[in-house]
Amino acid sequence: MRNRYFSSDPAQNSAALALYDSVADLRLICPHGHVDPRLFADSNYQCGSPVDLLIIPDHYIFRMLYSQGISLDELGIVAKPPSKSPPTGQCLRDPNELGGDLNAVTAVDHREIWRKVCENWHLFRATPTGIWLRDELANVFGIHLKLNSRNADAVYDALEERLSRAEFRPRALFERFNIEALATTDAATDTLEHHQAIRDSGWGGRIIPTFRPDAVVNIDAAGWRANIDLLSDVSGIDIHDFATYVRALEDRRAFFKSMGATATDQAALTAYAELLTNSEAEAIFGRALKGEASAKDAARFTGHMLIEMARMSSEDCLVMQMHVGSYRNHNPAVFARFGPDMGADIPIRSEFTKNLKGLLDRFGLHPNLTLVLFNLDETTYSRELAPLAGHYPILRLGPPWWFFDSWLGMTRFLDDVVETAGIYNLAGFNDDTRAYPSIPTRHDVWRRVCADWLAGQLVRGFIDEEDAFEMIRALAYDLAKQTYRLDD
Amino acid sequence: MRNRYFSSDPAQNSAALALYDSVADLRLICPHGHVDPRLFADSNYQCGSPVDLLIIPDHYIFRMLYSQGISLDELGIVAKPPSKSPPTGQCLRDPNELGGDLNAVTAVDHREIWRKVCENWHLFRATPTGIWLRDELANVFGIHLKLNSRNADAVYDALEERLSRAEFRPRALFERFNIEALATTDAATDTLEHHQAIRDSGWGGRIIPTFRPDAVVNIDAAGWRANIDLLSDVSGIDIHDFATYVRALEDRRAFFKSMGATATDQAALTAYAELLTNSEAEAIFGRALKGEASAKDAARFTGHMLIEMARMSSEDCLVMQMHVGSYRNHNPAVFARFGPDMGADIPIRSEFTKNLKGLLDRFGLHPNLTLVLFNLDETTYSRELAPLAGHYPILRLGPPWWFFDSWLGMTRFLDDVVETAGIYNLAGFNDDTRAYPSIPTRHDVWRRVCADWLAGQLVRGFIDEEDAFEMIRALAYDLAKQTYRLDD
Amino acid sequence: MRNRYFSSDPAQNSAALALYDSVADLRLICPHGHVDPRLFADSNYQCGSPVDLLIIPDHYIFRMLYSQGISLDELGIVAKPPSKSPPTGQCLRDPNELGGDLNAVTAVDHREIWRKVCENWHLFRATPTGIWLRDELANVFGIHLKLNSRNADAVYDALEERLSRAEFRPRALFERFNIEALATTDAATDTLEHHQAIRDSGWGGRIIPTFRPDAVVNIDAAGWRANIDLLSDVSGIDIHDFATYVRALEDRRAFFKSMGATATDQAALTAYAELLTNSEAEAIFGRALKGEASAKDAARFTGHMLIEMARMSSEDCLVMQMHVGSYRNHNPAVFARFGPDMGADIPIRSEFTKNLKGLLDRFGLHPNLTLVLFNLDETTYSRELAPLAGHYPILRLGPPWWFFDSWLGMTRFLDDVVETAGIYNLAGFNDDTRAYPSIPTRHDVWRRVCADWLAGQLVRGFIDEEDAFEMIRALAYDLAKQTYRLDD
Repeated sequence: MRNRYFSSDPAQNSAALALYDSVADLRLICPHGHVDPRLFADSNYQCGSPVDLLIIPDHYIFRMLYSQGISLDELGIVAKPPSKSPPTGQCLRDPNELGGDLNAVTAVDHREIWRKVCENWHLFRATPTGIWLRDELANVFGIHLKLNSRNADAVYDALEERLSRAEFRPRALFERFNIEALATTDAATDTLEHHQAIRDSGWGGRIIPTFRPDAVVNIDAAGWRANIDLLSDVSGIDIHDFATYVRALEDRRAFFKSMGATATDQAALTAYAELLTNSEAEAIFGRALKGEASAKDAARFTGHMLIEMARMSSEDCLVMQMHVGSYRNHNPAVFARFGPDMGADIPIRSEFTKNLKGLLDRFGLHPNLTLVLFNLDETTYSRELAPLAGHYPILRLGPPWWFFDSWLGMTRFLDDVVETAGIYNLAGFNDDTRAYPSIPTRHDVWRRVCADWLAGQLVRGFIDEEDAFEMIRALAYDLAKQTYRLDD
Repeated sequence: MRNRYFSSDPAQNSAALALYDSVADLRLICPHGHVDPRLFADSNYQCGSPVDLLIIPDHYIFRMLYSQGISLDELGIVAKPPSKSPPTGQCLRDPNELGGDLNAVTAVDHREIWRKVCENWHLFRATPTGIWLRDELANVFGIHLKLNSRNADAVYDALEERLSRAEFRPRALFERFNIEALATTDAATDTLEHHQAIRDSGWGGRIIPTFRPDAVVNIDAAGWRANIDLLSDVSGIDIHDFATYVRALEDRRAFFKSMGATATDQAALTAYAELLTNSEAEAIFGRALKGEASAKDAARFTGHMLIEMARMSSEDCLVMQMHVGSYRNHNPAVFARFGPDMGADIPIRSEFTKNLKGLLDRFGLHPNLTLVLFNLDETTYSRELAPLAGHYPILRLGPPWWFFDSWLGMTRFLDDVVETAGIYNLAGFNDDTRAYPSIPTRHDVWRRVCADWLAGQLVRGFIDEEDAFEMIRALAYDLAKQTYRLDD
Repeated sequence: MRNRYFSSDPAQNSAALALYDSVADLRLICPHGHVDPRLFADSNYQCGSPVDLLIIPDHYIFRMLYSQGISLDELGIVAKPPSKSPPTGQCLRDPNELGGDLNAVTAVDHREIWRKVCENWHLFRATPTGIWLRDELANVFGIHLKLNSRNADAVYDALEERLSRAEFRPRALFERFNIEALATTDAATDTLEHHQAIRDSGWGGRIIPTFRPDAVVNIDAAGWRANIDLLSDVSGIDIHDFATYVRALEDRRAFFKSMGATATDQAALTAYAELLTNSEAEAIFGRALKGEASAKDAARFTGHMLIEMARMSSEDCLVMQMHVGSYRNHNPAVFARFGPDMGADIPIRSEFTKNLKGLLDRFGLHPNLTLVLFNLDETTYSRELAPLAGHYPILRLGPPWWFFDSWLGMTRFLDDVVETAGIYNLAGFNDDTRAYPSIPTRHDVWRRVCADWLAGQLVRGFIDEEDAFEMIRALAYDLAKQTYRLDD
């Protein structure tokens, strides 16, 4: 259905369709996500089995099955070597592991896993995950079946057949998906070898890295000390104090920028930003190097580094992103066995008005800086984020994140922020996915939500047609491109 | 109107009606509520005057009149002996008093009270209380009048006439209401004599108790010490330390289970759960016995007992319920004169991600355990509750509670939780009422909300007809029955 | 369009129009706002240029332009002498400066400013500010153009022409706007000379003052000490301790009341109310006089004065208003250069259940007292405010404030509070504006929202026509008049 998901009110429905049609063919801007660059480094990269492609990398899917008592082992998730550090709620995500090994060998037969997913497909009714996979099967793979235990094998066979064809290789899909630019997310210590391979290959797809320094910035992150050594190695700067540490980070940012990066990204439990004095920063960093930093040290250091990163962005013009409010690895049994990013991250309340003031006081008006904010507490939308973005020149609001990357989540976001911030203080859309074949449907849902929302504004007389058509284009394409400086 | 309350969009309206019709005649599952079991113990139980039945037990009604300056005395509420303890915000509810004395003698003429209610009936416009009473008069009592000062006497007369008839006795209504199972809420120290009388009577209605240990668990609750003595008496276990206390609780749980209970329920100001060491628990319990426990002791002890109750449930398989976030007895003048449950309980913010971790770390994956969560802070729906329920196998989300047991409250609940948790991590509906004749309309409103909400999903193309019809049945009937293990 | 903004569902749309039509001509009750009384003191008051009238006093407009990198200087905002005190998040607003100097000389040509606004008018798409100015141009000035860079000059010329005419003087507009009563907001130390001039002029428009004691109550407010001296002067009471301070406040309240005031208003960062002992209040006041009060002193003193003001209101029957939750002057660069009220106030989380208890315990049931609550944290609507207002006789909920004075903000408010509090615990509408010509459109939007919302309730069968027509009248007119005791 061309008008799927739109309001059933006939006037709004037809207005939404006209708006949607005006942007449906615009290229996709993907300025933030977690697709593995290896997919594109080798022109013959094979996506593996249907389960390798669609289930194992997608914690949206397996966490729902887990919630109904199906173990991750049954779903083909491979146990990882145990971590020594217990989860603390601070970001423990090790960016070196982002995406895991997509082709990990698992003891469970993939066809059996697929059957288990199909048998339980009712769990995904009325969820974005369910909608994405349905749209993906139909539009990417040409499979127009509703999954169930009876057709599980037939769908599996059909998917295997598709994946064996050259036109389903990642690069071919990239072109078919009509992606204009795709940013990956990469550890500060990453050598970007896959990005280099892409460049060297002469292929024209624009795949760019994003500088994600969490593993070297959050001093309580698992493996922080080892990552600092790695940072010394890759930067060629011997990190022995805060000054050399900052220099190494600046060096890596310059390298990422030379490789096409236009943005950085930081994750933190809270948005707390605090400017330390040089000697405080130096002292905490010294304690961290010796493994003696306290939890309070870690929170303050992260807060200081948010401001430091803003300072660096004001100098090198990399767009700054902040993702806050996820209590990572909430389930210790899952973390111990499988590691991070296993669908066990749970949101907490966020606060920006007070927390972000330390950063805004110094850089809130800086002409070079763009700061894109993301969080998982919808109560901040109307109370804090829209008023902040409707005042501070550097701020842009990222699209609804994670659990809120959904029809109703996006609708609430627009309802809550546009009246105060307008749409021109938004950052457009990003899919933020590690599930590569879901990219087109995620953008499609966003474009449909915006079309339906603007159609509602239009038929009620808040805006006119000129407004509506310009706004849908901005939301679907222009704002993301401009915010992330991808038009250079 | 068969399609009352549904969207005025014709497509959604007719889809909603079809969905509603498919479940309208399913029997009612009532797994949590506060109806007094005495109503059913005697086959000839008389409900008293219309005011005894409809006004005096219903704090939803009299708190609204009170908010407009009408005193509780004018409404027939009887003053109670003063409590020695001042309200603290902790749960002071004494489960022995649940429901009060339904036939209390009041100095105010009941017809006068009824007239006062009718004169002020406009206050209930657009409120669930107003809708329930209207539906109840029409569908239970066959009175199709809109209350006002002119028809107050006529309606009173008609109600009196109905109540004099055998077909309006509680057992007859139970059958007419098509109730499959009704759980009451009973203090841990309750002898369940009325439940025993129901069993002994040979009547086939399934009325089961629920184990509510608040009065012996919250060491700062009014009368806690006396309740411990009572617990010793009824269990036959001399409680002199924490170990004997735990044994007595286990004994009572076994007794409740033998009387048909399938669930427990705890109320707490917050969801804070903390595992104490045995010696800590012992020490706090010892201080409590001597009347020397501090407020902090009380909070920690309640937190520990949440985990203890989870442990017991993992052993005896009673479903665990938690109701958190009500600041009880907020109005000291009302509490001093009338006691608890007088419409003066006010919600506070809740938090689950951090608070519940102590329990989830230990029992979050236990195959025997089901934990149903309720609270009064809607911001937790999308931010914490749906993500938690969409991950942890033991969790189910209770339906919108109290102030949110309303058309818009339920709609927001579905909007906020289903995209993340699906519907199969929900606990279906429970009416949670002490207003017995309101049970059918409360279930009817829930079934209508769900039908309308699913119809919206259907006409927009998120789900198909097969999904919608299976989902409405699950929400209306199956989920409550399964969650509360009433299909055994 | 007569039915603009209403639901596009035909049934709801026509019901909304009928409801709206029934109240569209009712006079406007304006019980809270910031219009400068000078506008009415002189029958020949000139409103200045279009920019003086429409842009410079309206921080809703210039903060949005500022958020997109347009400086306040470019927009004609005049820098003010620097304040000695840094912003603290406490209310620093100096009520003596409310509204600033409407005709301040600016170095930027006003026509240039107007062009800048028109060029950037797309920023206001789908915002209430955009809707208000459009409606205002059409309905107040008869200009039916959509602003853009091409018609900027033509609109400016047309506005200049209108403003030169006698029928666009403030008093003439007051009559055309059909205002029944307009309350201004005035410092406790204000001599009310403009109000006196209005009375002396014999003009019949009802313009009344409101007692706003923030600058003498918040001991950490900029200039507090000087304001105490001023309070001594205007009251003729030598303030040297807490007792004389209270006496001076009572004296000023009596004066305001003699000048027609029916209400007071206080702003605070939080709703925290704490009754101090006399000696504590005396001690803090003494420290404040010596400039030695701490931040904690300030918070406790403000909390105590909330209760003191409630006590005074219980004696003199002035309606009490509280506005909480705005972190004032969040941007130190803007505050340093331009002072307060420059669009840089950002909301924070609010809490009422615990914070307000100290006041409610003492005055929650007082028959003389009405307390109207406003705040900027929508999460409190359903969780705290509606339950509190649905219980305590003194409470009324003010309409959605500031960022939430918008179509969706008002709709969410009604959705969130009416089911629990009904509509008769609401205070109706107030425009709270310093943008005088926007008053009619603000009331019009409220009346349209209420009509559309009630039409939704009507077509779904929650209420009937009798209910709907009585409720729209109450919301549009009666509740504001009754709450603010303007019917005396």
